[in-house]
This record gives sequence, C-alpha cells and structure tokens, in this order.
Amino acid sequence: MKQQLPGGITRQNLKLSDGRDIYYYDNKEIERSAVDKRAEKAQPGIGHLRLDQLVNEWVVVASHRQHRVFLPPKELCPLCASTKEKQTEIPDSDYEVAVFTNRAPALTSPEANWKLPQINGLDTPNPDAAGACEVVCYTSDHGTSFAKLPLSQIRAVLEAWKNRDDELSKLTYIEHVFPFENRGEEVGVTISHPHGQIYAYSFIPPRVEKMLSAAKDYLKKTGRVLLDDLVQREIKDEKRVIAQNSEWIAYVPFAARYPFEIHLSPLRSVARMSQLDEKQSEAFPAIAKEILTRLDGVFGIEMAYIASWYQSPVNVGSDCMRLHWQIVSVRRQPGKLKYLSGSESAMGAFIMDLEPEQSADQLRQVKI
Amino acid sequence: MKQQLPGGITRQNLKLSDGRDIYYYDNKEIERSAVDKRAEKAQPGIGHLRLDQLVNEWVVVASHRQHRVFLPPKELCPLCASTKEKQTEIPDSDYEVAVFTNRAPALTSPEANWKLPQINGLDTPNPDAAGACEVVCYTSDHGTSFAKLPLSQIRAVLEAWKNRDDELSKLTYIEHVFPFENRGEEVGVTISHPHGQIYAYSFIPPRVEKMLSAAKDYLKKTGRVLLDDLVQREIKDEKRVIAQNSEWIAYVPFAARYPFEIHLSPLRSVARMSQLDEKQSEAFPAIAKEILTRLDGVFGIEMAYIASWYQSPVNVGSDCMRLHWQIVSVRRQPGKLKYLSGSESAMGAFIMDLEPEQSADQLRQVKI
Repeated sequence: MKQQLPGGITRQNLKLSDGRDIYYYDNKEIERSAVDKRAEKAQPGIGHLRLDQLVNEWVVVASHRQHRVFLPPKELCPLCASTKEKQTEIPDSDYEVAVFTNRAPALTSPEANWKLPQINGLDTPNPDAAGACEVVCYTSDHGTSFAKLPLSQIRAVLEAWKNRDDELSKLTYIEHVFPFENRGEEVGVTISHPHGQIYAYSFIPPRVEKMLSAAKDYLKKTGRVLLDDLVQREIKDEKRVIAQNSEWIAYVPFAARYPFEIHLSPLRSVARMSQLDEKQSEAFPAIAKEILTRLDGVFGIEMAYIASWYQSPVNVGSDCMRLHWQIVSVRRQPGKLKYLSGSESAMGAFIMDLEPEQSADQLRQVKI
Repeated sequence: MKQQLPGGITRQNLKLSDGRDIYYYDNKEIERSAVDKRAEKAQPGIGHLRLDQLVNEWVVVASHRQHRVFLPPKELCPLCASTKEKQTEIPDSDYEVAVFTNRAPALTSPEANWKLPQINGLDTPNPDAAGACEVVCYTSDHGTSFAKLPLSQIRAVLEAWKNRDDELSKLTYIEHVFPFENRGEEVGVTISHPHGQIYAYSFIPPRVEKMLSAAKDYLKKTGRVLLDDLVQREIKDEKRVIAQNSEWIAYVPFAARYPFEIHLSPLRSVARMSQLDEKQSEAFPAIAKEILTRLDGVFGIEMAYIASWYQSPVNVGSDCMRLHWQIVSVRRQPGKLKYLSGSESAMGAFIMDLEPEQSADQLRQVKI
C-alpha cells in the first residue's frame, strides 16, 4: 500500500527475507514489489544496557555486532540496488531513497511492556538494549554524496527522516530519535555508499540530557527558548553566518568545537523534525546542498563529517528544545585531522584550533 | 637548588631560553645546569574561552597553535636530550624525567587577578584561556614506551605528576589538574617520544563536572563515596579484575565504553594525586607496568591509548571524588579501530562492541 507524504513523496513498505522492514520513498510513480531472494538469516540477538554510575550514563553493550561488514569493495556494496547476479539489502533493481532496519542493530525492539528500570544503588540490572537502528540510503548511485544529490532527492530524504521520526517516536519504548550521517573513513565509516542512519534510543542520550538541562534552565530564568535566542545572536553578530534563505539559517556557532562546524536552524523554530511544515521542507534541500558543498569546497576534497539532527526528546522538552542540524568535520587542514584525545574525550574540554570567525570566512569564500 | 621528593627523587628547576620553565626529576645524584642555547623565541599569545550555551560548557579557542610540530622524524625529535649538533626542548645531554611548559600551550598563565567571569544571559565575554599545559617526558630513550620503563623510572614519573599536581593546584586560577598520555597516531599523537601531558584548567571540565555531580548525589543519598563502592563491587564481582597488589586494583569497569578499558584505583582511596602516600607510591610502578604490558599483549602490538588521571577538582569535591586512572584503547581488533562517530560523539551514547567480561578475560590471559 502506498502512503502519500508531503512534497509529492510516496512511501511503500515491504519486508526483507529475514523479517526486517524496508521502506521505499519515491518522487516518481512506481510500484515497489521486488522480493528479497536471499536465504533467510536470523538477525543477531539483542544487546543490553549498563549504567555507568561514575557519570550516570547508559552504555549500550552490543557484542553481537563485532563481525559487521567492513569497507566492502563497490561490487559487494550492500546498499546498491540488487541485480540479477547480486542480491543486496535493497531487493529492487533501482530505488530513490530506501530505509531499512540495520542488519546488526545496536538497539532493537524489545519484548512487550519493556521499561527502562529504575536504578537503586549499585546493583544495576542489565536491561535489553531497546530501541531501533535504521539505515537511510540516500540514493542508488554508489559514487555520489549527499551534497551532489538533486534537490528532489534531498526532499525525499527529508520526508523519510520526518516520517521515520514520526513513527519511531510513537513506539512506547522510544525516548529519543536521532537521524545522522557519518561520512568518511576518518570517522569510521565502513560503507562508502551515500547513506545515513537513524538511532532511536530508549533513554535520553547524555548530550541531549545536557542540552535539555541548559534549555530548561534558560526557559526558567528568562521565559524564552534558548536556541531561538542563540540564533538571534548569530543573526545580529552576522560574521559567522554562512548561508540563509527564507526559512533556514546556517552559521558557525559562537562556541564551535570543531575546525569546521556548521549549524543549520529553521528561522521559525520547531521542537521536532516531524513538525517541519511545507514551506520549511520545501526550502531545506537548497540550503542543505549549499552548506555541504561549501564544506567540501574548503579544501577541494570530500570532507569527512558527522551530520547530526538534534531535537527535543519524545516525551519531554518540547517547550524548550529546538530542532537543528549540526555538521562537524574533523579535518583541520588538508593533511591534518582534529583528534578527540585527552582533553576532548576524557575531560570533555574542547580545544578549537581555528577561530570560529576564520572558519566561517573560509566557508563563505567557497565558490559554489 | 635541589628539592627532595619522596622515593629518593630530586627535582631541579631551570629556565628555557624563551623563559619557559623546565623541571628535572632524577633518581640519580646529578647537578642539572645545562643552558638552553637556542635563540629566544617568544611564545605565541594566549587563547580565549567561549561558553557553549547550548550545553553550558567552556570551549578553548587556541588558534595560535595551528602550526605546531607534526610527526617529526627521530633525528628532529624535540623531546630527545640535546646534543652538540641539535638543541631540543631539553637542554641537558641526558635526563631521566623532564617536565616543561608546552611551547604552544592551549592554556597559559593569565594576567594577575584573572577570574572566570560570571555569565549573564547570552552576551558572553571571551576571557583569556587561563591555565597551564605542560609536557612530561617519561625518558630520554626515544624508542621505548611507558610500559617498558624500569620501575624506578615510573616512580620518577609518578613523583613528577604528584609534584606538579601539588604546585599547579596552588595557582589561584586553577580549578582542575589533569595528567594524561595520548599514545599512538590513531589518537592524534604528533610526537612518538614517550611522553604525557598535564593540562591545568581554569574551569571544571565538563566530564569532571558530571562525575562530581554523580558523586555528590551518591554521597547525599547514601553517606558514602561512590568510587569506593564501585571498587567494592568490582572486587565482589571478581570477573572483571585484571591485576591487584597490596595497594592498587585494576579492572575493566562494569560499564566500560571502549573495547579495552582499564581502571586503576588505590585500595585506600584518596581525592588527589598529590595525596598518594609512600606505600601507594611505592606499589604503583609494578601494577602500572603490568596493566600497560597486558594492554600491549592483547594483540601483540603497541596499543594506541588515552591514559587519564581523574581526581577531585582543586576547590570542590574532595569529600566525594576519588583519584583513579582510566586507560582506554580505541583498538577493537588488530586491523579495526573504535571510532567515536554519531552515537558516541554527537549523542554521548557509547556502543561497546565487546562484553566488558570478555575484554577482561583477554587482558588476564596475556602472558607477562
């Protein structure tokens, strides 16, 4: 059955042979019915959660994932469309955008009535690692990248994100939905085919917890929404703004942590991805393409990056937390990476090697 | 002038030609007087701090550091002892342990009466990046590693840490002292000569803040010290303990985040490094050597790691925070690294690919 989404995108649901879900998101009129002809293989079991009480943070133990695919050559890419000779994760012989459940998920659907346990003292249980991990294939074209996609294709990706956010957030065990993309071997990407992921957590992740706490405090003190005011400051300061259109603004934030860090916020703010309206959704592809093209243009090489959607958790924070996209690159010069070593990873204290204003300048100067 | 430290170690202070301090720590009887014959070069200026209000964390902006030394060949190593032909950072022609102020410090001494400003609203000042960054050279032997040092040499390193912790914590602008070692190009090390660093911050770093908050809560609820109870659990559980002697215990923690993560705690706990007594200091070198040797032994290769001393901040937390050493390795298999990508770096949610018990088993099985 076809589901009609905004922007003229349709969604069609099918199953992979081992029972996992696959969703096709299309601009064009097409019937999706290709059958996954691979022998069924049970998915590996569920991991578990452990509370790190030194800092009160959940850690996901997913030892069943050790043997996942590692940098396969193009002819073995599991995210390309299937051919007669080769069955991949996507049964159809072509696709626009496809989303499917990760074959070796760190987080997966738990038994009915699963609940995150209350922790008393140090005798912590090891609850099942409830949640969801999905792969979002941006295109069937193995050799391209998000920045090079046609605008209609980026719109289809956005609708897939919104749609998955909407559905995942309705699951009783989901507390937070996180769409993101890791790009580049430098950040550990094992498959180069253009794709992102969605992690849906059964707990509020530590960084979101911290963001929530700052936003709550600010709301309490000022009656205002923190990100709205931060965006206003960026507009007023002007010097770190790198792109803008009728609905979105992109800037290097005042306190950037990475040599190249871009935040993209809707000018009319929303708490969650699935709340983006038609005007915002329509205006997203052009500016998304522009900022990623600027990022690749700085050194004239494809930049390794982590692109993360931050939004309000599912059940709390919609009064004070706001959706935005953070793209950070670990490259500081053509031959040099920014490593998260002692100060950053052990202390959480970031040392930024470039003035944020310098970085914004370099991004603005890229000819596109 | 010679200063006598515990363990028969002496300290002697000299100056480098650009005014930076250098301290020699020695087991043997020796007069240190070698003069730095390099032309004076002013140190680059001071960086500044910016508050990231999305999460209420200070970021250090240190753009003056961009051109620091990058993987020099052995014959140009700035941490080797000086020779007639080549003047390095260490003027003497031989040394045991030497500590000096970083040539391009991210944090440095500010003007008199510097204070971290109170932040009101979003108009944040950019205070000078007050603090200290010191380099701790573990040995003059370029080709060795911490794990391979003689015990007396490790003792000298420990006394240097204790002594620097003691002095740095007396500076009015220092809130936290962090001795650490990054090892391996995989974690961004630019100089392979065995050395660590000490960062002394003028703010409480975010991870320490979080640890402090958990420890405070626990003290309030139970009247007990969190790390003491966590160590007791490890002793009781037994299966993650990998080494022990009369004064120290080493274990893979219950909620480890990295494939290979070892915590080392004194059995009689102390808040700060400089409080370690003679018995503890005497017993440290052997177990430190053992656990690092075990780490290198897992795959029979020198493991990249980050070794971090966590302790109580200078002015708060000594009632609830306890000193311990965390050594984490990003290597999960001989050819595979653990990357901090989307979930870890953007969400703070760690996915651990190995059961902590499995990891402890592998570490215990190493023949040493």
